[in-house]
Amino acid sequence: MAKAEGLLYEGKAKKVYATAKNDEFLVEYKDSLTAFNAQKKGSFAAKGSINRDITSLLFRELAKTGVPSHWVADTGDNQMLVKALEIIPLEVVVRNTLAGSTAKKLGLEEGRKLPSPLVEFYFKKDELNDPFVSDDQILLLGIAQASDLVELKTQALRINAGLQKIFAKIDLQLVDFKVEFGKTKQGQILLGDEITPDCCRLWDMKTNEKMDKDRFRRDLGGIAEAYQEVLRRLRQHFQ
Amino acid sequence: MAKAEGLLYEGKAKKVYATAKNDEFLVEYKDSLTAFNAQKKGSFAAKGSINRDITSLLFRELAKTGVPSHWVADTGDNQMLVKALEIIPLEVVVRNTLAGSTAKKLGLEEGRKLPSPLVEFYFKKDELNDPFVSDDQILLLGIAQASDLVELKTQALRINAGLQKIFAKIDLQLVDFKVEFGKTKQGQILLGDEITPDCCRLWDMKTNEKMDKDRFRRDLGGIAEAYQEVLRRLRQHFQ
Repeated sequence: MAKAEGLLYEGKAKKVYATAKNDEFLVEYKDSLTAFNAQKKGSFAAKGSINRDITSLLFRELAKTGVPSHWVADTGDNQMLVKALEIIPLEVVVRNTLAGSTAKKLGLEEGRKLPSPLVEFYFKKDELNDPFVSDDQILLLGIAQASDLVELKTQALRINAGLQKIFAKIDLQLVDFKVEFGKTKQGQILLGDEITPDCCRLWDMKTNEKMDKDRFRRDLGGIAEAYQEVLRRLRQHFQ
Repeated sequence: MAKAEGLLYEGKAKKVYATAKNDEFLVEYKDSLTAFNAQKKGSFAAKGSINRDITSLLFRELAKTGVPSHWVADTGDNQMLVKALEIIPLEVVVRNTLAGSTAKKLGLEEGRKLPSPLVEFYFKKDELNDPFVSDDQILLLGIAQASDLVELKTQALRINAGLQKIFAKIDLQLVDFKVEFGKTKQGQILLGDEITPDCCRLWDMKTNEKMDKDRFRRDLGGIAEAYQEVLRRLRQHFQ
């Protein structure tokens, strides 16, 4: 089992450690839960383990559809060995149905199905509140090149297509999701971070119930049960 | 002289009236001054007349460089006869130097010269606080077509090139500006609205003094004098 060799980074929901191999990191999924740029905080037991399992399963399913990720192996209850990436500081959001900040910003109703998926970039910077940015503003910031943006959009749409199929099989509608990407030392762009109910909106196709972090954001209760149920359904179909 | 025949629209700094001709409107420039989505309000005597004169002169100079606008004729002290346009609800911003909201949003210092002009679109909707929008979000809103956006960007950059030359001749640095466009009944896209120190950032090339609405936004005083001085310099060189 890989051994953590020094904390490189602590985020709101994960810790990243160096390992003995300089091209691999160890990611530890925490039980904490935050929203609204960490103004709202919570946690539930085994959340880290559930989210590690969900991410791992989704990354392995996506790999079968030709989407490479940083996943190498699971280790322990809530850890994941990953390829060392330099994260591109962009949150890449894909929306199939309008909800959340963009619905509010544009004055459009939540739940509107989009004619085609909408890809959005947000500059990952807590102290600026992760602002929405255009391609031109990203180039000005110098955090990605024009060719990177084309690749990020292409990969994001491919991930969307893959995830929609996966979630449809377990009766969940993929409303939107956020992913992050990073570059290996060799310059390859890989899907990094996680894919969990923390960063997806998942609506039950039969009951329309929210099965994601909106239960926490909007004080709907039953958070642990929703995350657990997503994992249960995924395991039932894909393991 | 054209006669106003009924108020069509009252904005923060202008009123628009119908005229006897259904392809022409009469625009009246008001003396009022607002900032931060009208949370801050002020006015000064003859502002409407100064801004009408500045816009009129700039529109006529831009026409010589191949940029058509809605301007038809000046009338009275503070009125302008214009071609009837259906305004596209986008504020088109061009930045040569970083300042204001984008500098703040990206956490970059004001005064940074950009390697190339940055074009930005804001959805013109007071109750939403004029949010910054991407091309894809504009298409989703249905307020412009993809081909319109290409034309708006092309025209905005042409206007920028024209205005930079004009202002350089009178020792003013064009930091950024906002313009609006509209469509004639025949579908032609024309520069509409106004070009004044209300919607441009103009810095004196010698003293670096602000010669625009930032004097009002930032309580620097000397607002009327600054607007008057911009007009005086324009007239000295272009009339």
